[in-house]
Amino acid sequence: MNMHDQSGSAKLLRTARCASIAKHAGRRAFALAAALSLSACSALTTPSAPTAFMATGDLGTIIERADGSVTLINNTRNEIIGRVTGLGDLSHASIVYSRDERFAYVFGRDGGLTKVDIVNQRIDKRVMQSGNSIGGAISQDGKLIAVSNYTPGGVKVFDADTLALVTDIPARYVNDLGEEKQSKVVGLVDAPGQRFVFSLFDGNEIWEADFNQSPPAITRFKNIGKQPYDALISPDGRYYIAGLFGEDGLAMLDLWHPEKGVLRILPDYGKGEQKLPVYKMPHLEGWAVAGKHAFVPAVGQHEVLTFNMETWEATGKIPVHGQPVFVMSRPDGREIWVNFAFPNNDTIQVLDAETLQIKKTLKPGKAVLHMEFTPRGEHVWVSVRDDDKVKVYDTRTYEVLAELPAQKPSGIFFTHRAHQTGL
Amino acid sequence: MNMHDQSGSAKLLRTARCASIAKHAGRRAFALAAALSLSACSALTTPSAPTAFMATGDLGTIIERADGSVTLINNTRNEIIGRVTGLGDLSHASIVYSRDERFAYVFGRDGGLTKVDIVNQRIDKRVMQSGNSIGGAISQDGKLIAVSNYTPGGVKVFDADTLALVTDIPARYVNDLGEEKQSKVVGLVDAPGQRFVFSLFDGNEIWEADFNQSPPAITRFKNIGKQPYDALISPDGRYYIAGLFGEDGLAMLDLWHPEKGVLRILPDYGKGEQKLPVYKMPHLEGWAVAGKHAFVPAVGQHEVLTFNMETWEATGKIPVHGQPVFVMSRPDGREIWVNFAFPNNDTIQVLDAETLQIKKTLKPGKAVLHMEFTPRGEHVWVSVRDDDKVKVYDTRTYEVLAELPAQKPSGIFFTHRAHQTGL
Repeated sequence: MNMHDQSGSAKLLRTARCASIAKHAGRRAFALAAALSLSACSALTTPSAPTAFMATGDLGTIIERADGSVTLINNTRNEIIGRVTGLGDLSHASIVYSRDERFAYVFGRDGGLTKVDIVNQRIDKRVMQSGNSIGGAISQDGKLIAVSNYTPGGVKVFDADTLALVTDIPARYVNDLGEEKQSKVVGLVDAPGQRFVFSLFDGNEIWEADFNQSPPAITRFKNIGKQPYDALISPDGRYYIAGLFGEDGLAMLDLWHPEKGVLRILPDYGKGEQKLPVYKMPHLEGWAVAGKHAFVPAVGQHEVLTFNMETWEATGKIPVHGQPVFVMSRPDGREIWVNFAFPNNDTIQVLDAETLQIKKTLKPGKAVLHMEFTPRGEHVWVSVRDDDKVKVYDTRTYEVLAELPAQKPSGIFFTHRAHQTGL
Repeated sequence: MNMHDQSGSAKLLRTARCASIAKHAGRRAFALAAALSLSACSALTTPSAPTAFMATGDLGTIIERADGSVTLINNTRNEIIGRVTGLGDLSHASIVYSRDERFAYVFGRDGGLTKVDIVNQRIDKRVMQSGNSIGGAISQDGKLIAVSNYTPGGVKVFDADTLALVTDIPARYVNDLGEEKQSKVVGLVDAPGQRFVFSLFDGNEIWEADFNQSPPAITRFKNIGKQPYDALISPDGRYYIAGLFGEDGLAMLDLWHPEKGVLRILPDYGKGEQKLPVYKMPHLEGWAVAGKHAFVPAVGQHEVLTFNMETWEATGKIPVHGQPVFVMSRPDGREIWVNFAFPNNDTIQVLDAETLQIKKTLKPGKAVLHMEFTPRGEHVWVSVRDDDKVKVYDTRTYEVLAELPAQKPSGIFFTHRAHQTGL
């Protein structure tokens, strides 16, 4: 265990933020409110000064991968409201939120776990919990933060309030030589019933950990397929599906029926990936479900695949502009938005979920890494890494509504994720 | 038009709230935070003083129907945090939230529309917009509030910021005598694409109003069935379904295909309601969808009905304890929770969504009016009107975790609804 409490430094965009508060308060004719807000702003001599009138339902974070920082945004006013720095290596980072939406837990590539207070725009706590980590999740009740690690492998589970270590799950397996080893862990998600589910890349296993008891009750599913490299859970938290790097098809666990074991579905998935170099393995957590169809990125092909979620049978292939990375459903399910791997990563395509036709092709700029829809779907935010900007689109007219500066932006995460399972 | 700006009075539970902030801050060792919070609390000489450190993701409101007030709660700590009074007749009231979760819009039975600032625990604005209203909705972009009226009928649409009237839609129709009349309006919901959809009780019509233009473009669907009395929209915002008081079956509009018109589905729905007196028409907005099945309350029968959402065919009947009122899916879809009309309204039954068996029968107390799940489903809050309390249950163990006092509580609304369509 390698835990250091690093308080870190937080930098505020004070002027812009306070001006915005004053304008906002003034427009609504709250004399007292304006006075208090301005006074709070002029008193901002430390990064821990509180913000008056804060509601958090329309806030979000953008990972700035090169700088180890997150930009804080408001998705009603399409504005940057602050920035927090000192988060370490964010080259493959992700974020989950506390159930009150006050804290963003940032999982860094270097094993850093940082709890950012987005209301007060500062680092609340930070621990180095491993040498190399790949993602995390927050428990159903919001009390536990789990992190999956490459080095030394395994899963560590922390108290969401204090970041104190609660449980260490080394994820040991026995290899072909009969040796006990610790596995890299991937595809970590939260599931209903206070559970975490994850996959052992080296161990070829899926584990389900039930945290209704302490230590957690762990159920191991062995020989699920070679080298699971990522996974998703369906929006209702029922189906856990892992992609396999070492063979074709996908490994599926029905969490309502663990007694049925792990099944192989879509046996052709990944086949033919040798035909083209695979520039980037697609993100499985981006799978879209619209009606009874699920839309998934093909591996190494210029295609989006569809399958039926009742029969688990492939139903079609949609030719697209490049190798898809994220395949995401607009919240109303009417459209599927797709971005692509290098060298086609300047483009987004929008598919009609019913006709399966390409409806629109957009060119946001150089290196489109991620998309995040506002919760009710009227806008989508797009990070354009090599242009150092984030663009906000109207999803009805496809117009650009705003462009915001960000340093090498990657993942975008809005606070409504606090209320969803499996993110 | 009958609009009065009534500032109203707001009452804070100051002592309890400030003590809670101090305890909270102290536990987390924020010296500065605690100092600032306490100072804010001791300065609470007016109800408009701001709250520092407010995150709003785990807040909610409970309607106290007899007192014309709402109790404000925190669903992480299972605590009451405040109370706002002066909201008029709340005997059939409902609430929607602004997209930042700061404001609760309360639709009163007396035509009052009140914008409650839940961060500062006060009435922000209040208008009397009709003589008798039955519900409301907030537009996809959060900028418009629509209210459906009985007296004088029609829909009024307000600016969400100022509560200024934006559009009046009188909902006129021509009756059998050839006279133009204004219809009572029911089943008002928001739909994706900045639309509102509603039904004309007297006019036997469904209207879709597209607010991407001003005045809105209105599409009328006539002769949809006699006396639509309530409606629901599917969670993705695609299917609008109205219940018919004057005949059997349901009227369904596929908003992806308005050119197909309104179809009659489940032709036997409501049949046989004469066999038992109907104590209360069920709430259609409570319909549960789990997998491909939808679960709906039978009218006047001790049954929950199931139907297939692809074929729209009835698939079964589940005998239950009384006439169901709300039939709600736990967020993970694994269980269906049902409450009942008088005289069986002391009971909740829990159905297994897969086996369709009754799993558990609970007796929360006298007059169980409403249930609200925490967004990820680990708890459910239950209002027990005649016992003047709200009970919080663990949905895994069915244990009561907390009991909170409330005056004749009815609807319970958590802030994550800000991010959902059709509520």
